[in-house]
Amino acid sequence: MKFQLQKTDEYSKARCGILETDHGTIQTPIFMPVGTNGTVKTLSPPELSDNGVQIILANTYHLYLRPGDQLLAEFGGLHRFMGWNGPILTDSGGFQVFSLTDLRKIDEEGVTFQSHLDGTKHRFTPERAIEIQYNIGSDIMMVLDECTPYPCEYEYAKKSMHLTVQWAKQSIRFWQENSNPYETDQALFGIAQGSVYEDLRKECIEKLIDLDFPGYAIGGLAVGEPKSERNQTTDLCTDMLPSEKPRYLMGVGLPEDILESIYLGVDMFDCVIPTRNARNGTVFTSKGKLIIKSAKCKADHKPIDENCTCYTCKNFSRAYIRHLFNSNEILGLRLATLHNVHFYMWLVSEARKKILDDKFVNWKDQLLEQWKEESLQENKKIINRKDHPEYSGDSPPGERKDR
Amino acid sequence: MKFQLQKTDEYSKARCGILETDHGTIQTPIFMPVGTNGTVKTLSPPELSDNGVQIILANTYHLYLRPGDQLLAEFGGLHRFMGWNGPILTDSGGFQVFSLTDLRKIDEEGVTFQSHLDGTKHRFTPERAIEIQYNIGSDIMMVLDECTPYPCEYEYAKKSMHLTVQWAKQSIRFWQENSNPYETDQALFGIAQGSVYEDLRKECIEKLIDLDFPGYAIGGLAVGEPKSERNQTTDLCTDMLPSEKPRYLMGVGLPEDILESIYLGVDMFDCVIPTRNARNGTVFTSKGKLIIKSAKCKADHKPIDENCTCYTCKNFSRAYIRHLFNSNEILGLRLATLHNVHFYMWLVSEARKKILDDKFVNWKDQLLEQWKEESLQENKKIINRKDHPEYSGDSPPGERKDR
Repeated sequence: MKFQLQKTDEYSKARCGILETDHGTIQTPIFMPVGTNGTVKTLSPPELSDNGVQIILANTYHLYLRPGDQLLAEFGGLHRFMGWNGPILTDSGGFQVFSLTDLRKIDEEGVTFQSHLDGTKHRFTPERAIEIQYNIGSDIMMVLDECTPYPCEYEYAKKSMHLTVQWAKQSIRFWQENSNPYETDQALFGIAQGSVYEDLRKECIEKLIDLDFPGYAIGGLAVGEPKSERNQTTDLCTDMLPSEKPRYLMGVGLPEDILESIYLGVDMFDCVIPTRNARNGTVFTSKGKLIIKSAKCKADHKPIDENCTCYTCKNFSRAYIRHLFNSNEILGLRLATLHNVHFYMWLVSEARKKILDDKFVNWKDQLLEQWKEESLQENKKIINRKDHPEYSGDSPPGERKDR
Repeated sequence: MKFQLQKTDEYSKARCGILETDHGTIQTPIFMPVGTNGTVKTLSPPELSDNGVQIILANTYHLYLRPGDQLLAEFGGLHRFMGWNGPILTDSGGFQVFSLTDLRKIDEEGVTFQSHLDGTKHRFTPERAIEIQYNIGSDIMMVLDECTPYPCEYEYAKKSMHLTVQWAKQSIRFWQENSNPYETDQALFGIAQGSVYEDLRKECIEKLIDLDFPGYAIGGLAVGEPKSERNQTTDLCTDMLPSEKPRYLMGVGLPEDILESIYLGVDMFDCVIPTRNARNGTVFTSKGKLIIKSAKCKADHKPIDENCTCYTCKNFSRAYIRHLFNSNEILGLRLATLHNVHFYMWLVSEARKKILDDKFVNWKDQLLEQWKEESLQENKKIINRKDHPEYSGDSPPGERKDR
């Protein structure tokens, strides 16, 4: 993997770069749609590439349990198994394991847990997490870390951060001394923890920088903290992280969060929001959110977004998509997902263009203002807690609600 | 609509023809995938045409209730609403209404029923069924009929057949005296009833022929009768029906049923089996059925069907599709449906070629023999009543299990 920083915005920390992997080149800032089980829910691989997707995220925990990393190795890795020839990033499985609060036990060497599928016992160590990711064959692997909840006691966050750093050391050693079954390169990213405590974040990042990872993630955010704390911590982290390495903010987020984090110097994002919200009937447009099932769409001839060039918007009315949702038709989930993924890819590619033109800050502020107004006008009437992804109850066990 | 009989097989009643509609030309024999709610479940319109689909079926009852035929008229008809520019056939809604056994009451003028969605009261008459289909704008409309169950008392079948004939008279008069809101032609097919009673079928068909419909359907079959009775009745009907008009066997069927009915001189078919079975994990291949979820597919690198050229078979292994089904991933339903629809379209287009070459009978017998053997070898071990479509419990109210 090779990262080249192309440009930093004149008026903010926003930046763009090029990330080269053996499965293709990624232009940052970039959003990675989530393909937990080796499929971005409802979409086929050509639908991803046709809509500007450059890299997807897959979940080590889920793939390890089903179909199993050994089976993936037999098939030549996840790329071949799922028919996606572009870059893949895998998380370490740590986040899912730690979310199994009652089913896991952590110790200094690793974590023992029960499968949410069948209750069988398993154990992840920093080394094992890389072994599994070697079998998956992802282009970017993540180290095993402990993602602390929010809020988190200072003492616990401190102890946990030290464990994460210790595991990072073991991980990079294992990665340097071993190799995967394939001929492709697999990079390894370190993950900064430390909750919202400035001194802990600083200490963690200093120690990770000493280990010289090919890239760095900011973990432990998007777990329920207020936006102000998230932005403050992100700002602190990007101030410290080396400019010549890619920076990945894990689990973020809503379109507005992505814009704010690009502003703070983040290069990479992943989140289930575009795909999950689509399946719940919420679509994103250049003018704000739209609840496609709402009565106002009943006889609406307009596409979801008149400015959008995706297959859904070029071919179908809001009324038809609403009808599909009301009739529980899978095509509705597909069309909404396709649009939302297209919208997220449009958002980051547009951000990139604006950064290259030194117009990012104005453009971002205008969009945020527009969405805020739209939200005040429209959504107050409609959105209830159920419609908001962070409160939607459809997460499978072991999968974070907002990821 | 114009039908041209091109050729009748030298060794059987099998035939091929060309059916011209304002939305395109159909080469018979043809299979019509079912798009109950204005979408062939899981598939997009281009996926239909790319896989050889020439005409789809939509359900008047379902579309009348949701989104409503008035809304469809506002959108210029179903073709525009759903983005499918090819031919559409609609049933009359009668079949669904009559399947609401406890929620409907029949009289000589029509049938009053309660919606399975919200319990509201509605009434269909022969004229109203055409009015609704006028708003839908389908290329081929069906008359309102009563589809008798199996088994059916002779006296009831006789009375019901006379009612169906009376309604057919009213229908053709209404059709001749009225027109749709669009500029496209809508043909009207009569439906032969009479259960499995030879004299009733004969009487019904004689009277329908007098009314000179543009095409004729054989109704009242595929409702649980033994195959021998179905074939006998089909044989009788195609003997009597005029050769220069298209013949449509409603609700049939499995691949073997389609071949046997083509042999008996049927031109058109519809059935939910390819789409519904796909969603239950049963796929059809040139060598017989395959339960994709079965353990034997776990590490199988082969496509569903090595002889198949569909997108699914060109890109994905049985192991991957099995994994998608096990993980409840929608892409699995899509890939299996795409394959099954492709298979059904291959089957009828291959039948057509063989008829043109006077090789139909041998080819059909070979395929049937092959499937029978495969079924003896493989499926006896696996298939239980649940896997069979006629016993699967996933039918929405008002939709016949095998349609």
